[in-house]
Amino acid sequence: MHLSELTHPNQLHGLSLRQLENIAKQIREKHLQTIAASGGHLGPGLGVVELTIALYQTLDLDHDKVLWDVGHQAYPHKMLTGRYNHFHTLRQKNGIAGYLKRCENKFDFFGAGHASTSISAGLGMAMARDLKGEKFKVVAVIGDGALTGGMALEAINHAGHLPHTNMMVVLNDNEMSISPNVGAISRYLNKVRLSNPVQFLSDTLEEQFKHLPFVGDQLSPEMERLKDSMKRLSVSKVGAVIEELGFKYFGPIDGHNLEELISTFKQAHQMQGPVLVHVATVKGKGYAIAEQDQVGYHAQKPFDLKTGKAHPSNKPTPPGYSKVFTHTLTTLAERNPKIVGITAAMATGTGLDKFQKKLPKQYIDVGIAEQHAVTLAAGLACEGMRPVAAIYSTFLQRAYDQIVHDVCIQNLPVFFCLDRAGIVGADGPTHQGMYDIAYLRCLPNMTIMAPKDEAELQQMVVTGIEHTSGPIAMRYPRGNGVGVPLMEDGWEAIPIGTGEILRSGDDILLLGYGTMVQTAMQVAEMLSEHGVAATVINARFVKPLDTELILPLAQRIGKVVTLEEGCLMGGFGSAVAESLLDNDILVPVKRFGVPDILVDHASPNESKADLGLTGSQIAEKVLQMFFSKQPSVVS
Amino acid sequence: MHLSELTHPNQLHGLSLRQLENIAKQIREKHLQTIAASGGHLGPGLGVVELTIALYQTLDLDHDKVLWDVGHQAYPHKMLTGRYNHFHTLRQKNGIAGYLKRCENKFDFFGAGHASTSISAGLGMAMARDLKGEKFKVVAVIGDGALTGGMALEAINHAGHLPHTNMMVVLNDNEMSISPNVGAISRYLNKVRLSNPVQFLSDTLEEQFKHLPFVGDQLSPEMERLKDSMKRLSVSKVGAVIEELGFKYFGPIDGHNLEELISTFKQAHQMQGPVLVHVATVKGKGYAIAEQDQVGYHAQKPFDLKTGKAHPSNKPTPPGYSKVFTHTLTTLAERNPKIVGITAAMATGTGLDKFQKKLPKQYIDVGIAEQHAVTLAAGLACEGMRPVAAIYSTFLQRAYDQIVHDVCIQNLPVFFCLDRAGIVGADGPTHQGMYDIAYLRCLPNMTIMAPKDEAELQQMVVTGIEHTSGPIAMRYPRGNGVGVPLMEDGWEAIPIGTGEILRSGDDILLLGYGTMVQTAMQVAEMLSEHGVAATVINARFVKPLDTELILPLAQRIGKVVTLEEGCLMGGFGSAVAESLLDNDILVPVKRFGVPDILVDHASPNESKADLGLTGSQIAEKVLQMFFSKQPSVVS
Repeated sequence: MHLSELTHPNQLHGLSLRQLENIAKQIREKHLQTIAASGGHLGPGLGVVELTIALYQTLDLDHDKVLWDVGHQAYPHKMLTGRYNHFHTLRQKNGIAGYLKRCENKFDFFGAGHASTSISAGLGMAMARDLKGEKFKVVAVIGDGALTGGMALEAINHAGHLPHTNMMVVLNDNEMSISPNVGAISRYLNKVRLSNPVQFLSDTLEEQFKHLPFVGDQLSPEMERLKDSMKRLSVSKVGAVIEELGFKYFGPIDGHNLEELISTFKQAHQMQGPVLVHVATVKGKGYAIAEQDQVGYHAQKPFDLKTGKAHPSNKPTPPGYSKVFTHTLTTLAERNPKIVGITAAMATGTGLDKFQKKLPKQYIDVGIAEQHAVTLAAGLACEGMRPVAAIYSTFLQRAYDQIVHDVCIQNLPVFFCLDRAGIVGADGPTHQGMYDIAYLRCLPNMTIMAPKDEAELQQMVVTGIEHTSGPIAMRYPRGNGVGVPLMEDGWEAIPIGTGEILRSGDDILLLGYGTMVQTAMQVAEMLSEHGVAATVINARFVKPLDTELILPLAQRIGKVVTLEEGCLMGGFGSAVAESLLDNDILVPVKRFGVPDILVDHASPNESKADLGLTGSQIAEKVLQMFFSKQPSVVS
Repeated sequence: MHLSELTHPNQLHGLSLRQLENIAKQIREKHLQTIAASGGHLGPGLGVVELTIALYQTLDLDHDKVLWDVGHQAYPHKMLTGRYNHFHTLRQKNGIAGYLKRCENKFDFFGAGHASTSISAGLGMAMARDLKGEKFKVVAVIGDGALTGGMALEAINHAGHLPHTNMMVVLNDNEMSISPNVGAISRYLNKVRLSNPVQFLSDTLEEQFKHLPFVGDQLSPEMERLKDSMKRLSVSKVGAVIEELGFKYFGPIDGHNLEELISTFKQAHQMQGPVLVHVATVKGKGYAIAEQDQVGYHAQKPFDLKTGKAHPSNKPTPPGYSKVFTHTLTTLAERNPKIVGITAAMATGTGLDKFQKKLPKQYIDVGIAEQHAVTLAAGLACEGMRPVAAIYSTFLQRAYDQIVHDVCIQNLPVFFCLDRAGIVGADGPTHQGMYDIAYLRCLPNMTIMAPKDEAELQQMVVTGIEHTSGPIAMRYPRGNGVGVPLMEDGWEAIPIGTGEILRSGDDILLLGYGTMVQTAMQVAEMLSEHGVAATVINARFVKPLDTELILPLAQRIGKVVTLEEGCLMGGFGSAVAESLLDNDILVPVKRFGVPDILVDHASPNESKADLGLTGSQIAEKVLQMFFSKQPSVVS
């Protein structure tokens, strides 16, 4: 069967092992071709090809539910659920999403993008099933990296307490999150991976035990207990922790052996209550280059399949924000041993892997555990260290209470560096960094800033490190800087709460924040072509807002436009509006930013155009709204 | 020694067991007297009197650090750190705080109020110590309830991975969170509590093993492994899971035996790497009435020490919001089996214990696990159930990413019921429900409402249940309703996004949200005495805001005041301001709410007066600001 003919996963039923192996081959080919051509997650999907096929072989997906944690391991799932023929549109505008979406396909039973959610959602479905008196299977497939996220452990604690609620957790153990795993659970799983499967060990030991002289006749009570513990003992070699937590344990099994997978899944489906099947997989399986560099090939830009190397860029690009961030932080930390860089399993994404190489002692990777990362940082700050928590805007949502309760209420100097703030592009709604301005701005003691370009980011890294009187956050976007010259050294901190005037004009006041400062300058240039003179302010801080600078200008000029790359509700523009009204300055304010909708995957430029956030779109609207002009051409 | 003379915990050093027992007696007496007189947490503190004394006997608190999880178990700690003489001011304005605060006392090494943070913060301090090359001990004392919170498990996963980072976790195991514990970890700990301590078992088994014939001479490799596993086996009886996670395990020990506690702590302090001491305590120890009703005596209003009964109230009070909420929800759920009530270990606080009694199958307590609670609810919603997540405003912060990622992005109909929204009174900054309007309002698909009184809450419960097109949140305050008549039945849903006019007048527009609608009516009454006629709107929804109702009135009346019990930054008033500006309505807007500060513990009325949020304070300011009047008397 060719995959292009497969429209329903149940069509896998009854195929021979050889046919299934052929399906696996087709998936891998399409997977590699697609990601080589347009980029995406490479290693995770390749590791679960057999796991997915085997699982679907044992399920009836018209009734049963499968939840794929994170979603980036679900490319094979997508190809087996009617999306093979469109798979080449992966992560492109209006194409197949890079993560799971309920609205994309009925077999995407639960959307995902962040880690560690699948067991909770699956348990909810299983409990609903039992309340409704229905019968179907629920399977959550979760990676060993995601398993150590706190909410997954909360879910296991709950599920393990419900012996009559049937649910299967498949642990996709590839010994990795994006970076190599951190933590005791990972070390434990690793030990388990190296053990023989439970059945074998248990049987052998029981056999041995029988041949011991006097056994069964003259045992003391202590030895009776020892005997009773035989099974426990064998399980302790492989799954004791999991069994103690109320799950029946199967494994470890070879995640690339279809026959073993199918027979184990079938057996495990027969069990009552929560079951965990431990599957040992190889990230990047079937593509030797990726198997050998599992960190490097977790996700890829378009690349050459033969060499594994990214296609050389046509023109030189400015360095990325993450790179400038790490470089600057590393330079500062080399001189200041109190600086500690913290990541939650995103060493390469945040660029902190470079920091680690130079300053391993000042580097902490806590694994997928943003909550712990933030409160750990608070503990470090109590002892006079300068913790720098580099966490994507979207993932920092996981640690919101820790920011409130452990950092802001105690006014501790933790420096939050929010990478991927604003529009993130191909990763789509689950990864958009839209809400950080709104969710951080309302917290007492918090200082919030955003650089207009990569050179100002350097200054702001210094500013964040030198701000020791309380918490401070800096947001910066995904992708490359704008190409301004960088300084190798000699950066100076920006005084807290000060903006700067970039251009002066008496007709309108443009207030830009972060990336949108560049856009504000473009708008000003376009407006000037229509005879409208704009003042442009780089606000730099949304909290505290530079009211000394902004308010008199707003009063005098009488027309205000705010520009931000974040949600409009409660964001930068709202901060400006609040300030103006609080100070009795009644002037029209037009706020440009992300309206109250979800932004789908697309390139950042496509998203911006869709949202009306390009320079020419804004210029046109400003002319219409404030100057009653209907310009025919805005260049 | 009398406790009134003890100003430093190190003064405990060198005291005899008998003297320490006398200290324990004094702590219990003061503890009981204080809480009987003015209310507070009763059971948790009584359970750790000996634990605290023993621990401080083995520490030098000029250098060592102790972190008390949640903080409500830290009353004995407070009495041993110089606060005995002021302890009678507990939870009163300017008095001793009910939780831990770094700014209150230098021995409050880390503030707390929410659960599960202590291991993360302690590990941060321990890592800072090692980076600085200093030497001191770090001890985190955490309850068995708090241990199952995801972030505590994240911290254990990290700490267990650091064999050279010395840190002690004391597990205060009283078999309870506020409600009886939930989950597999709790069941496991319970099993462990019933075991003999590890040392004993291990020794005996080794002895037994030696006397087996042929042991040591003719063992097969399998049996050699069995021998090696002896220690493991004995540990597996009591602490296998903990040892597998990289901690050395001590216990279980009797938490009310000072001698055993002291010797175990001393032994455990000698160990390298992370150590866990498992202490079995009795919640409410020493006060028989509390020992017998551990849920009822977790926290108390003022009561009679002899009978344990709360002092009868002087006058009849209206029913509390939580009570009305539960009653209404239970009535609806009796008819609609799809309704599921979810709590995260706050069954009594949210009132859901009553729901549980009537509808146990439709009730889920997930334990201290707000993240899991919300995503579980999302899973239930996927299967057509009507999940109602009843979580305090402040604790819902823990599940922020789950609200964004699992509920809002997927637009799933989860009904969030935010108890304790706004000013909470004696619990102080860690428990204030200030930020929910701001942190929820910015999320797409979310509907947000707040009732003006307990009768409207009934309607909003119906509204929330009937709103199946997406997520919806209702916030309501701690404490009693305003005394309006309740309906037993026949409630109708309020159309989404509609406010109501409560009073009409042409001089000023007062927009109230939630509890502040009552205040707006008071303000209107006071203004009328000064000849100012106010229109009062009960907004009911902050999202979607009833712009059809509000905008024309704002335009016509020309003066707007907003009133809310929540943070001003990004809150209800900001929503109104945004709407006005977006619609080119340039009128003055004065926003009343909680400014950008932390609100300390005090009675709610004291806090409101401090914040200028009483009716007369607002009326006075409105007169000054809008009508240039300096009223001598505002009644």
